[in-house]
Amino acid sequence: MIHESLAPFFDPRHVVLIGASRTPGRLGYVLAHNLVAHGYRGDVSFVNPNGGELFDRPLYPSLDLVPGTPDLAVLLIPARFIPDSLDECGRRGIRAAVVASGGFSETGDEGRALERRTREVLDRHGMRLIGPNCIGIMDSDSGLDTSFLSGPGVLAGPVAFVSQSGAVCAAVVEWARGDGFGLSRLFSLGNQVDLSETDLLEALGDDANTRVVTLYLEGVNDGRRFVDVASGVTRSKPVIALKVGRTEAGSRAAASHTGALAGRDVAYQAAFRRAGILRAASSEDVFDWARVLAQGPFGPAHRLAILTNAGGPGVAATDAAAIEGLDVVPLSEGTRRRLTAFVPPEGAFNNPVDLLAAASPEAFGGALRILLDADEVDAVVVILPPPPGWPAEDVADALIAEARGSTKAVVVALMGDAGIRVARERLREAGVPSFRYPERAVRALAAVEAAEKARLRSPDGVHVPAAGPLPTPGPDGWLEAEDAAQVVGRAGVPIPAMVIAADAEAAARAQARIGVPVVVKLRSRTIVHKTDVGGVRLGLDTPEAVSEAFRSIRDGVAGLGPDAFDGVLVQPMAPGGTDLIVGVVRDEQFGPLIMVGTGGTDVETVADGAFDLAPLTRDQASDLLERSGAGRRLTARRGQPGSDREAVIDAIVRVAALASGAPGIREMDINPLRVFADGQGALALDVRIRMDDAG
Amino acid sequence: MIHESLAPFFDPRHVVLIGASRTPGRLGYVLAHNLVAHGYRGDVSFVNPNGGELFDRPLYPSLDLVPGTPDLAVLLIPARFIPDSLDECGRRGIRAAVVASGGFSETGDEGRALERRTREVLDRHGMRLIGPNCIGIMDSDSGLDTSFLSGPGVLAGPVAFVSQSGAVCAAVVEWARGDGFGLSRLFSLGNQVDLSETDLLEALGDDANTRVVTLYLEGVNDGRRFVDVASGVTRSKPVIALKVGRTEAGSRAAASHTGALAGRDVAYQAAFRRAGILRAASSEDVFDWARVLAQGPFGPAHRLAILTNAGGPGVAATDAAAIEGLDVVPLSEGTRRRLTAFVPPEGAFNNPVDLLAAASPEAFGGALRILLDADEVDAVVVILPPPPGWPAEDVADALIAEARGSTKAVVVALMGDAGIRVARERLREAGVPSFRYPERAVRALAAVEAAEKARLRSPDGVHVPAAGPLPTPGPDGWLEAEDAAQVVGRAGVPIPAMVIAADAEAAARAQARIGVPVVVKLRSRTIVHKTDVGGVRLGLDTPEAVSEAFRSIRDGVAGLGPDAFDGVLVQPMAPGGTDLIVGVVRDEQFGPLIMVGTGGTDVETVADGAFDLAPLTRDQASDLLERSGAGRRLTARRGQPGSDREAVIDAIVRVAALASGAPGIREMDINPLRVFADGQGALALDVRIRMDDAG
Repeated sequence: MIHESLAPFFDPRHVVLIGASRTPGRLGYVLAHNLVAHGYRGDVSFVNPNGGELFDRPLYPSLDLVPGTPDLAVLLIPARFIPDSLDECGRRGIRAAVVASGGFSETGDEGRALERRTREVLDRHGMRLIGPNCIGIMDSDSGLDTSFLSGPGVLAGPVAFVSQSGAVCAAVVEWARGDGFGLSRLFSLGNQVDLSETDLLEALGDDANTRVVTLYLEGVNDGRRFVDVASGVTRSKPVIALKVGRTEAGSRAAASHTGALAGRDVAYQAAFRRAGILRAASSEDVFDWARVLAQGPFGPAHRLAILTNAGGPGVAATDAAAIEGLDVVPLSEGTRRRLTAFVPPEGAFNNPVDLLAAASPEAFGGALRILLDADEVDAVVVILPPPPGWPAEDVADALIAEARGSTKAVVVALMGDAGIRVARERLREAGVPSFRYPERAVRALAAVEAAEKARLRSPDGVHVPAAGPLPTPGPDGWLEAEDAAQVVGRAGVPIPAMVIAADAEAAARAQARIGVPVVVKLRSRTIVHKTDVGGVRLGLDTPEAVSEAFRSIRDGVAGLGPDAFDGVLVQPMAPGGTDLIVGVVRDEQFGPLIMVGTGGTDVETVADGAFDLAPLTRDQASDLLERSGAGRRLTARRGQPGSDREAVIDAIVRVAALASGAPGIREMDINPLRVFADGQGALALDVRIRMDDAG
Repeated sequence: MIHESLAPFFDPRHVVLIGASRTPGRLGYVLAHNLVAHGYRGDVSFVNPNGGELFDRPLYPSLDLVPGTPDLAVLLIPARFIPDSLDECGRRGIRAAVVASGGFSETGDEGRALERRTREVLDRHGMRLIGPNCIGIMDSDSGLDTSFLSGPGVLAGPVAFVSQSGAVCAAVVEWARGDGFGLSRLFSLGNQVDLSETDLLEALGDDANTRVVTLYLEGVNDGRRFVDVASGVTRSKPVIALKVGRTEAGSRAAASHTGALAGRDVAYQAAFRRAGILRAASSEDVFDWARVLAQGPFGPAHRLAILTNAGGPGVAATDAAAIEGLDVVPLSEGTRRRLTAFVPPEGAFNNPVDLLAAASPEAFGGALRILLDADEVDAVVVILPPPPGWPAEDVADALIAEARGSTKAVVVALMGDAGIRVARERLREAGVPSFRYPERAVRALAAVEAAEKARLRSPDGVHVPAAGPLPTPGPDGWLEAEDAAQVVGRAGVPIPAMVIAADAEAAARAQARIGVPVVVKLRSRTIVHKTDVGGVRLGLDTPEAVSEAFRSIRDGVAGLGPDAFDGVLVQPMAPGGTDLIVGVVRDEQFGPLIMVGTGGTDVETVADGAFDLAPLTRDQASDLLERSGAGRRLTARRGQPGSDREAVIDAIVRVAALASGAPGIREMDINPLRVFADGQGALALDVRIRMDDAG
């Protein structure tokens, strides 16, 4: 069920256009025309202070004079009149409005002030609004079209399009019509003074007319809510997003390793993955994928059969499958035997199946039927250059007859131009997606597979314990090293023993308590990179060596300010193992991102970190570890036993929970997390935590 | 100048078709029709044993009866008659033939035998041949069309297409016509009994009608010759290749690290880079890129300006530029001032330049002119959704007027479908490339930039000294460790001192000579991975420790066969540094590939190796080092000085020269090549070399 407050945007009974114009060519004229000429079955009223008549309807001089009770107002009047006009709508009991007019925050301070006033009016009346500065709504089912785009409107179909760019909508309507796939609804969001991409996505999840949702995003308004809502929608229908405007790492002032690696839109990448959203790399992807998914639902599409009458393009499709992570599966003995009825002896019975150039429509149809019946095949891509012996449309008809009844996805790469035009039209009418190039056809099947994986993924849901009070950071936001270690230790990640020593004698005594050898580390509120000032001494195995190290560290920082030296930390020296980094960086939109990568001082140069949103289930942590290059380092190798993978997963889950429960943590690195042999655990050897300026 | 023996394929004066048919619909009929109906100005004769007449010409019952002297024969008769018929052609003095017929090696042993006989006939008469099993030649300049494809043939233009897949040619002809770009020549190579992709590429390099060469490759016939020929051609005209059929790492039985990493078509990748070939990732790339490059030559296209009337798609284009490695450059103060004549105050003067939705054709034209005049701009991409206020074709006309006179590349992303059809046609006629999606337009400009870089790249040319005689390997092809080290040492790569010791006493004496500490390593003809059997002892600093190590190593391998122990090697222990791997693996087609990557035992898991063909200039070696993740490890970092980059480059150049001069080397790893601080050199600490079975 679509939420009551949004219902008027989905199925209004009476729409009033404020700003209808009698002057042909003006936007208010085109909009009025679209409202009455694109099949909308509800009531339409026009308001214009000059009165008169338009399209056989009266132009009411004011909203008061409109009879009945409109439930959706569309406003296309100068921006400065919008707040008052909306107020009038509110007083009239209208609870939903589309403001198409520009001239708001996109133009400067004055416009921003107008948006604030608009927001106040909405709050006063409990109104919902799409816009301002937008193209509005197109609804192919009810015929509602509040856009001022010229042209015939949208074809009816199952794909919804939600756009934060108005400019792209005109192209989208044409692309969709040109590609022959229908749109259920189009929403252009404009400046999103009220309704956002997440609100519409949520509603479209419940919209019976929509089977696929496509999003054109420049950003999201509330990252976590977006992920939550999208996670729900993608379990029932595919969501495809094109996110434009990728941000650079440099724009974020990051001091931790994790922060430095969390560059270019890893947060969106992680959020889309978590939410089960298919991320399009280009506008072309959006349309290719939506076109295929609109014909679903399909099952998985991982195990591919390729059917062709041309060797070369078949190989190109095989390459594309490898790139997209799909399997061109070996065909079973039985399938190959059945194919002999249609594949000539010199043809290829392996996958790709090659019918050879002279293949008849019957051969194409028969072979497709066999492949669709084969248990080992999830989906079929047919590669068809203009067949030399037959009209391509005859082949198309044969393919349509088989593809139609199948629940498995079938796509056709219809190569060529003039010679395949009729065939393309036939396939389009029959709902069998066709593509100009083999690689695009295969990539679209990969989207089918990804959508199915998203639909079936295991539930999220992780318990996050509230974090206790955190230590107070220094003026730069960093916690003291041992404070940071203890925060992690309290979260359940093992840390080494540590003794603080204020003088050389205490340091030497500490060694006696801990055993040998030990590490002696500078404590300092002002010096972050302690190795740079000789502040870390390893492998000290006599009391004398420890005393000497204490003095040498103290003297080494003597010239670096009064707070540079705050005693030393004495710790046992950890045995060897595999070093990982586990880190956290807080993203403005999506909250804490967690990173896992190869640890050590070379972390900047290896850059194999993988990211996910916190918190994480154990399964998600395991997947994250696998995606990072570091995961592979834990496997047993020649002459080396495997490392304690479970301990790493445990640490990742605990760090993620800590970050989720303690919003004050801005960045964190455990580097290294030293991992020992299987069953021997892992140890957070060095921990750095930076808190928000707010503390 | 095209080589004399190939001239008849490029400009024949008299073509004879052997196998012309009077039966409409048969391939011999269509081929005859194409020969006379597509504008060919030379003489055409038909041969058919049944005689008669076709298209107002006689069908000569035999070749003997054909008057005049044909210089090109086209054969379309059953495969079994081909050798004899070619022999007749040879006796008649014809030196060039196209065999369109199938039924050769693609069908099995009998066909292979026919190809051998065909080859013998060619050799006997010094004839050249294209095919068999091919579509033949299409030449838009002379009108020659030896194909049996139905349809109107090719449009004239500057793009040559050479294909190892016949099936793709029909689609290519249609795609090209549909996209409105002309082909100079199309060659379908079929089974390549004689002429190969490299022969045609070489000839097309000298063909005045061809400005861009496109290749559809399933493989190359002689990798090194292909690279040599292509390297020459790409310095005068762009060459675009689509290579289908990528090979997997698994198919090569590799024992070295380098061999294991040299997976999936790195050899082709390296060869194309070396040759300056633009590697297309899909058929779509081939056509998009060729379409733009056909309008050249252009200068560089690195510094991009984006002109649009729509914010969102402008951002999408900016993203695409970042992905393709192009710069959306900041515009100069002067350019921005000049733009105020056309960009409204609320528009964007930064790059992308946003004229806002209502932009007029004049605004588009004026702004494009300013951007093309700007010194800081190399190329312009115009992003144009259907403009709300104006017909798109008016905007197209304004753009054409400016783009036409410019030497800078201009491409248009013409978004939409029905509303931009006329505009697309106008741009096509004017030779301004347009694309349906912004990302494709930007990617095509990246190809312009890549072609220009390839054209201007520095010459190859490296002196390769002949390698001296190499040591004899063990039965498995591996050289003894110290033999391998000495091979590398003689090639000029520094190696550590080494002393061979057959007994414990000799080992202890060696230590005294070398100094302390030392490493003691097992020598063995049968054990490759010596660490696995405890065969390597580090940091030994007393004679007793060395003697003890000797005995322990000897006893440890006592059960592993009679040849397992062959004494030990005593070497000085190298100081710490940064470890790289420098390796070689011999590719069947392209000869030695050299790899540089991060060294150490983790090399399988890091997999950051970059590859190039050997030999290398110092510049190429430097570039290779930069492309590998390992290169970055040599730079100075916090608290660590830089490493000796020049010593690494020297080692790479020497290893590459060694591999080029010693074809017996099948695989080699220097792992690690330990690199010391700047000026301190590098040392090949461990070297493994595997020789060909032939030795």
